Amino acid sequence: MNSNEFREFGKAMVDYIADYIDNVRDRNVIPSVSPGYLEKEMPQEAPVDGERWEDVLKDIDKLIMPGVTHWQSPKFHAYFPTSNSFPGVVGEMLCAGIGCLGFSWMTSPACTELEVIAMNWLGKLLGLPEEFLNCSEGPGGGVIQGTASEATLVGLLAAKERVVRLFTKTYPSLTEGDIKSKLVAYTSDQANSSVEKAGILASVPMVHLPSDSNGSLRGDVLREAIEKDKGAGLIPCYVVATLGTTGTCAFDNLEELGVVCNDENVWLHVDAAYAGAAFVCPEYRYLMKGIELSDSFNFNPHKWMLVNFDCSAMWVKDARYLVEAFNVDRIYLQHQHEGSAPDYRHWQIPLGRRFRALKLWFVLRIYGAEGIRRHIRHQIQLAKHFEDLVNMDPRFEVNTSSMGLVCFRLQGDNELTQQLLDKINAAKRIYVIPCYIREKFVIRFAICSRITTTEDINFSWAEIVSHVSPHLTN
Amino acid sequence: MNSNEFREFGKAMVDYIADYIDNVRDRNVIPSVSPGYLEKEMPQEAPVDGERWEDVLKDIDKLIMPGVTHWQSPKFHAYFPTSNSFPGVVGEMLCAGIGCLGFSWMTSPACTELEVIAMNWLGKLLGLPEEFLNCSEGPGGGVIQGTASEATLVGLLAAKERVVRLFTKTYPSLTEGDIKSKLVAYTSDQANSSVEKAGILASVPMVHLPSDSNGSLRGDVLREAIEKDKGAGLIPCYVVATLGTTGTCAFDNLEELGVVCNDENVWLHVDAAYAGAAFVCPEYRYLMKGIELSDSFNFNPHKWMLVNFDCSAMWVKDARYLVEAFNVDRIYLQHQHEGSAPDYRHWQIPLGRRFRALKLWFVLRIYGAEGIRRHIRHQIQLAKHFEDLVNMDPRFEVNTSSMGLVCFRLQGDNELTQQLLDKINAAKRIYVIPCYIREKFVIRFAICSRITTTEDINFSWAEIVSHVSPHLTN
Repeated sequence: MNSNEFREFGKAMVDYIADYIDNVRDRNVIPSVSPGYLEKEMPQEAPVDGERWEDVLKDIDKLIMPGVTHWQSPKFHAYFPTSNSFPGVVGEMLCAGIGCLGFSWMTSPACTELEVIAMNWLGKLLGLPEEFLNCSEGPGGGVIQGTASEATLVGLLAAKERVVRLFTKTYPSLTEGDIKSKLVAYTSDQANSSVEKAGILASVPMVHLPSDSNGSLRGDVLREAIEKDKGAGLIPCYVVATLGTTGTCAFDNLEELGVVCNDENVWLHVDAAYAGAAFVCPEYRYLMKGIELSDSFNFNPHKWMLVNFDCSAMWVKDARYLVEAFNVDRIYLQHQHEGSAPDYRHWQIPLGRRFRALKLWFVLRIYGAEGIRRHIRHQIQLAKHFEDLVNMDPRFEVNTSSMGLVCFRLQGDNELTQQLLDKINAAKRIYVIPCYIREKFVIRFAICSRITTTEDINFSWAEIVSHVSPHLTN
Repeated sequence: MNSNEFREFGKAMVDYIADYIDNVRDRNVIPSVSPGYLEKEMPQEAPVDGERWEDVLKDIDKLIMPGVTHWQSPKFHAYFPTSNSFPGVVGEMLCAGIGCLGFSWMTSPACTELEVIAMNWLGKLLGLPEEFLNCSEGPGGGVIQGTASEATLVGLLAAKERVVRLFTKTYPSLTEGDIKSKLVAYTSDQANSSVEKAGILASVPMVHLPSDSNGSLRGDVLREAIEKDKGAGLIPCYVVATLGTTGTCAFDNLEELGVVCNDENVWLHVDAAYAGAAFVCPEYRYLMKGIELSDSFNFNPHKWMLVNFDCSAMWVKDARYLVEAFNVDRIYLQHQHEGSAPDYRHWQIPLGRRFRALKLWFVLRIYGAEGIRRHIRHQIQLAKHFEDLVNMDPRFEVNTSSMGLVCFRLQGDNELTQQLLDKINAAKRIYVIPCYIREKFVIRFAICSRITTTEDINFSWAEIVSHVSPHLTN
């Protein structure tokens, strides 16, 4: 394909994407296909000769779209949002077009430097403590990871490095293997599955501590667990606090946890994957009180802040632990400017990294701080509107409401809500998923699409109500 | 930004990318900026109000491009290629436009199913053994990872899982901690830095075994190391063989290593990050003889096979070890079709994953098998042409030539070649990096850009020769 054909194909794709977003609310949000649907429609092998792009584009509608779950539909209320914005898409295009890698400053200075700058802008926008920023005097800084899963794992590996260094110094008789075999980490029983997975990947047991009745992990629970484990000869090294849990968007008590972690010299990582975006609005920053006591902080602009996946923003107070944990150098990676800018390969799991700062920079500039705040506040208003609708119907109860997420259920046995959920999703017009709050089975209703309106919420609520069994009268 | 503005901005970006690639050879491949250049040009904070996209686009030329190292330039000969093709760019656009996540079948059936199909097509195109493919009867299958680094780590974690299961069954008195503390893995002294990093991340010592005079790791060296370590009470669990090393594109002897690994019940992972793409051409498949003895195989279509970064193709013979190592389930991740298609979140480190199969599918269809083979063969011919040019100049010697990579140096002391390298890169017109072959300092010359022509190679050679000190006469 030459560049003239690309101009045609690329522009046709721009129109395709614009049309897709313009009309996405008219599609069933859940596809009607059965497993294996695509295999039946596809050849067994790649074509021998190249095909026309027009034929590939036709197949998007014919073969791909029937199997897509439409995360950008205003009728998608499952999980949490996955960002999609026009500036974000164009940023991703340019990233692909330039096609550079930025594993060291030298391999594309702009790639590293724009990331440093965009992460400083973003950190300031959130009101993060100065010491987390690259532009501070100290060893702190920000980096774009692929996902919150990776950020949690990177934090854990840095914490391991720190504690191993500390213990080998303090107790020279201990081997690294001895120390590693005694490590233990903590999180709440509400933490995302990726936190448990990080523990598995890093071979550090991840203890799930009980959250309080609001789904919040508290300091005294952590302190008790640490003291008990230390008494048993274990070495506590890492705590993952969640700001905005996956189940109900609950907030751990960072201030209490931070004090315990600082007392015990345990690395505190804050996973604010979804809710962190709300800190662009000063009125929500009280929820991250205590952030200055943490060692690392992560949130996903690719969830709720209009930057296309993948863009997970992580800041650390002291990047030297990352670099020391990950530094594996070779002559072909060396360059004369080492040390003058972060060589981000030492801040992450993979070696290769693309120019993701472009899409973050595009979003920050084209929306502006106020545009992003408007987006967050509007989505929270929509959730409030949904909450009001539920509250007005006495057959239902609202169990939690936090940020853009409302958890609700039918009054009575769990089975009623389970049946309702099954009917809603079987109809495929809106998409919701469940969770448990203690023993209660609830439906999570998240505001996900950027283009959601009050009318969309009214539609979704009417859809929910339409599936309530008629014998459940008001 | 509404969809009409996106149509304008997106199409302007398509033209920008087309123009960039059309004219990339006219730019200095290495930028002239110093560390910190961008900070001086940028505001300290994100704008309060949104800016016009036209202004952002202007700043690409003004601020970003001066700091880009042009990996897509035909004058870029450093590292290995990072793919960039027009179908790949458009595939990435659509992935961003749809903006779905595919961590389970249900979250977007097309995302999982197209990945299964494209990985089957690709595996067949490479001539991989049937048992690696999803379409085989057994538990094998393919998955798209972000990078070869991740694939190596995923393989290691699966190998750990397998050996821990085996040993706890055979020796019930051993704890998991006991077993893990005795694990050891092996690779060659030529392996990429990411292999050593995988060992660090997974807390398994990665032993670097000496390669032979061709840079190839041989079976007897591995067998000896395993026997010695077993004698010392260690548990060998993982071997990473490289097909196409970063330094010289050397190939480990897979057939010999495979026999040893099978004898010893050690997981054999094959890292063919760069050179694996050549196996689309049957005439190069002899270099992967023994592949049927391996447990996992990985190569990067995003390196040499025209799919934009990131797209790292990994196949495993038995995916159950991955799933068992990584499976961390929650009620909100469950769906009624579990087991009928791979839930790829269990095959990788992160939870989230985007629709990367689109760009792979676009490339396979629009190039076709023959188009991809033509690309590979053409690039190897260009390397051969460069090798011939070096060989015709008696001041130089060719040290290795393999696939699209030629290593060469000036006759005489290393210092001469080091000085030459410094001069070449200081001039910024072409970009090359060094490596050591045993005690010899050599320059690596890789064919990287998709658009490279014979004239480009002649230009690069003339540029190299122009920096040879005049007192080195023919």
